[in-house]
Amino acid sequence: MTASPRPFLLGPNQYGKAEIRVLKTTRDGATHHVRDLNVSVALAGDMDAVHYDGSNAGVLPTDTAKNTVFAFARRHGIESPERFGIELARHFTTTQDSLHRARIRIEEYAWERTGDTGHSFVRAGRETRLAQVTCEGGDVEVLSGLTGMTVMNTTDSEFTGYVKDAYTTLPEDRDRILATAVTAWWRHRETNGAAPGPGWDDSYMAARTHLLDAFAGTYSLSLQQTLYRMGAHVLELGDGIDEIRLSLPNKHHFRLDLTPFDLSNEAAEGAVYFAADRPYGLIEATVLRAGAAALIPADLANL
Amino acid sequence: MTASPRPFLLGPNQYGKAEIRVLKTTRDGATHHVRDLNVSVALAGDMDAVHYDGSNAGVLPTDTAKNTVFAFARRHGIESPERFGIELARHFTTTQDSLHRARIRIEEYAWERTGDTGHSFVRAGRETRLAQVTCEGGDVEVLSGLTGMTVMNTTDSEFTGYVKDAYTTLPEDRDRILATAVTAWWRHRETNGAAPGPGWDDSYMAARTHLLDAFAGTYSLSLQQTLYRMGAHVLELGDGIDEIRLSLPNKHHFRLDLTPFDLSNEAAEGAVYFAADRPYGLIEATVLRAGAAALIPADLANL
Amino acid sequence: MTASPRPFLLGPNQYGKAEIRVLKTTRDGATHHVRDLNVSVALAGDMDAVHYDGSNAGVLPTDTAKNTVFAFARRHGIESPERFGIELARHFTTTQDSLHRARIRIEEYAWERTGDTGHSFVRAGRETRLAQVTCEGGDVEVLSGLTGMTVMNTTDSEFTGYVKDAYTTLPEDRDRILATAVTAWWRHRETNGAAPGPGWDDSYMAARTHLLDAFAGTYSLSLQQTLYRMGAHVLELGDGIDEIRLSLPNKHHFRLDLTPFDLSNEAAEGAVYFAADRPYGLIEATVLRAGAAALIPADLANL
Amino acid sequence: MTASPRPFLLGPNQYGKAEIRVLKTTRDGATHHVRDLNVSVALAGDMDAVHYDGSNAGVLPTDTAKNTVFAFARRHGIESPERFGIELARHFTTTQDSLHRARIRIEEYAWERTGDTGHSFVRAGRETRLAQVTCEGGDVEVLSGLTGMTVMNTTDSEFTGYVKDAYTTLPEDRDRILATAVTAWWRHRETNGAAPGPGWDDSYMAARTHLLDAFAGTYSLSLQQTLYRMGAHVLELGDGIDEIRLSLPNKHHFRLDLTPFDLSNEAAEGAVYFAADRPYGLIEATVLRAGAAALIPADLANL
Repeated sequence: MTASPRPFLLGPNQYGKAEIRVLKTTRDGATHHVRDLNVSVALAGDMDAVHYDGSNAGVLPTDTAKNTVFAFARRHGIESPERFGIELARHFTTTQDSLHRARIRIEEYAWERTGDTGHSFVRAGRETRLAQVTCEGGDVEVLSGLTGMTVMNTTDSEFTGYVKDAYTTLPEDRDRILATAVTAWWRHRETNGAAPGPGWDDSYMAARTHLLDAFAGTYSLSLQQTLYRMGAHVLELGDGIDEIRLSLPNKHHFRLDLTPFDLSNEAAEGAVYFAADRPYGLIEATVLRAGAAALIPADLANL
Repeated sequence: MTASPRPFLLGPNQYGKAEIRVLKTTRDGATHHVRDLNVSVALAGDMDAVHYDGSNAGVLPTDTAKNTVFAFARRHGIESPERFGIELARHFTTTQDSLHRARIRIEEYAWERTGDTGHSFVRAGRETRLAQVTCEGGDVEVLSGLTGMTVMNTTDSEFTGYVKDAYTTLPEDRDRILATAVTAWWRHRETNGAAPGPGWDDSYMAARTHLLDAFAGTYSLSLQQTLYRMGAHVLELGDGIDEIRLSLPNKHHFRLDLTPFDLSNEAAEGAVYFAADRPYGLIEATVLRAGAAALIPADLANL
Repeated sequence: MTASPRPFLLGPNQYGKAEIRVLKTTRDGATHHVRDLNVSVALAGDMDAVHYDGSNAGVLPTDTAKNTVFAFARRHGIESPERFGIELARHFTTTQDSLHRARIRIEEYAWERTGDTGHSFVRAGRETRLAQVTCEGGDVEVLSGLTGMTVMNTTDSEFTGYVKDAYTTLPEDRDRILATAVTAWWRHRETNGAAPGPGWDDSYMAARTHLLDAFAGTYSLSLQQTLYRMGAHVLELGDGIDEIRLSLPNKHHFRLDLTPFDLSNEAAEGAVYFAADRPYGLIEATVLRAGAAALIPADLANL
Repeated sequence: MTASPRPFLLGPNQYGKAEIRVLKTTRDGATHHVRDLNVSVALAGDMDAVHYDGSNAGVLPTDTAKNTVFAFARRHGIESPERFGIELARHFTTTQDSLHRARIRIEEYAWERTGDTGHSFVRAGRETRLAQVTCEGGDVEVLSGLTGMTVMNTTDSEFTGYVKDAYTTLPEDRDRILATAVTAWWRHRETNGAAPGPGWDDSYMAARTHLLDAFAGTYSLSLQQTLYRMGAHVLELGDGIDEIRLSLPNKHHFRLDLTPFDLSNEAAEGAVYFAADRPYGLIEATVLRAGAAALIPADLANL
């Protein structure tokens, strides 16, 4: 870093290696297990010199971050995305003086067994599991989440009583389809990285179930109401979760007017719908345990 | 068509509406059912005039094809993709003199039930079901298929004994991961559109199972061998299937050399692999019942 | 291959390495040049043994195909995608007895110069250049093409006089937007791989210009008519091109009805349009020089 | 909002319509002009009731937001993305008591003229222009940006002198390729929505040029250094820009080892490179005018 006054200053920054695709197998006799991750490492710290002058003296190469992910998978195994992220984040922030913060983001792809060989799998496509671990100054923040869980209720959804202005043409609907592709991130209460009671994997599976149950069980007057119920259900039944943020695109299914073809098309009869791509409604909100702070960034929900 | 000699002539052609996204619900009391399709209609016939002179006198608009899909879903329901495709293909070729051939391609997205409401669903992501129906001169050809079924064996795969030339550096491997994303199309024996014995849906589910079973059950010396076994298994156990074409990208999982980090990484120990994107091996082949003709186009497998 | 009668037989097949991403630089003093390709190699020949029995004795590994692409780029340079494909296809079919046919498909991404360094480039995004070379039994077939060239006329397009049936609701339109994303493949007259008069690069640039000129210059009564004019223009002005196949999705731009907001929205006034995603019209046809055969596969246009 | 104490509370939230695809034409005699946008509207305000109880009394439908975008395009035209966003954001926050904040995000796709008709266009693919306007309490914040501008220097880039730890295997490189796909957002000094001196369009074109010039003109010791120079160049030469955030994926081009094939492959000779997909380095930073605050969110750069 130079001493002269600069007209333009370095602001918030981070660097790292993104989308490291690692598969770890475990053999338990003839029964194999797999964890299939996509890991992104973002590091921050004393980085003035490299930005201002191109000095790499404080820069751990992103190629090294990649090697570390692979080596840690072999050395420590992958017990869960959250645990793996905690190990990596602590490693980077405790072994390099120039690195003060490490954020590990992980996507996990699920595989189901097929056949009876013990080593054959078919990829389950229902959703992608997410985790984000941030280490800074000894503190560990753990977020878990999921994306791409597409759900639909074919009834028990209406949308009425809304504001009408000069640009409103939408007719009220008392029996519509409600469908969305859930992205959710939830924040675990600060425990310095210790797993919640049920462990990271069971905690994830429980949250996933609570989201599905609340979606299915809510008679919906608006997607906002459904979102709140989904979030509150996770906070209520989950173990040590303080905050959840949901991003719910409204995957519109428009009931068609088939009267030009002498056909009725009422919901109660079993209607035909056009599944539209764009534009789409997008509902985003955080739900908090009373007393908890809103720490999940607004745009994180869309990642 | 004009009478004057033309230096440039119209060759094979078709037109239609692609990717009509239609959802059909059915209500059986509180229990709802859904079929969620993406339908593409391609029509061909006497189309010289519109290409040479812009006369639309023989052109049924693609917008009409779209309306027809929606109206047929309401009028006839969607019993299966194949049945729906047959109804549509027959309609176009029997109601318009200018249309001699209709090809209907359908993708179906599967939904599973969630909760106990009877009307709540979560999209199953494992694969996309495919169907293609072609009607021409009264004949009906039906193909069924699937795409995006990603499978993996974590052992019982080797690759040895291959040709070595001046550009070969690949070491032989006696314990590798074999993973692929299956695209398959199979052709039903000509029955003028009648369903196979078990019905279209059960026939599909059986073929899917046979593909999975053969993949899991084969000790693989090459992906070509696995492909052949998958195809032969569908022909052997399926009902009235004469031909199958498979397109299998080799989703490479490279076992990493971790010796720079003083780590072994043997398959038998539970190794770490890098899941590569590109380039990838691509193995494509047709398997035929003896005496059957190879009618599925080579590039169809990639659609 | 075994001698015993088999109930299921191997049909048409090929294998190879897909999407080999290779960048070749050339330095001419301070002025650098780049060719940026995505190369896919597909090989076919005596492949019964590997499918039936897993014997790789006739299999050149796909990894070797990859190495060959990289080595050839260094040894011979990349003069053009077509020339590079010819060299590769000939190599595979003349050096391995088991390989009878090689098909090389290439995408090329264009870069434009930026700044005055001679070594700085910005990627041009307008379209992707395509080439396909097939060698079999000493014959060489060369196709050139492009994909992703999106064009639009904001007037001089109408659609009227079409068939109306019971499912037709589309109003006639005498001033509509015509937009499409062009995919085109054209076949060079057999010359055993010799370049056309202007050379492969200039021949490509000319065909690209002819497609644009015909699109812009045609008062369109239908997208089919525009397609034919585009194809005929390439055949008419190109050098040694016998056949062209075009695939033109109709990128619908729907003029909106704004009367609920007391707004007119006539084309002549400068209208507002909704750019729709799906469904879309899809017009596909081959145009042939009189006497030439239609050899480009129907589905090739969509690759 | 209800009066009873709730265990779970609504945190930050917004809702709206995303990805409204609108094309506006303007006719100036035979010369037509087009603006082609993808507009996303996000609204926030008094939304407790709809989340807690499903009351839509304060909810302007997202369908109305869509209608408003189309009607405003017709009524006011689209002078620039920024101007259009300001008009929309002000409309929503000044006409509905329940709406306190509106954020309009816009992507613009560029079209170039082709032919001499005045109404024929080809889509330019080099990058997507971005704008984001946020109105809250009468204040207007305007960000401009771009994404997908892919650039490459084939020399004048090195990477040496970095930290080596136990996981570092990367060799130093004094002549490497530097390539990246630029995403940039820059913030205009608060002017209550007035355009900068040159107007929004010229301001955008200037910033785009400054980014390219700095990328091309920098001898790079690290991508971080290049990033800083790009940002500082925009702040230095732009008019009224206080802050810029850049997200630069390192699009790795690995120089191949061709010695197994008896080939050298030195950069100076015109080398062959493998263009890798994943993983990739990712460098993100904000550059600020001295005294300015860092207001662009960290993850905005990735949208």
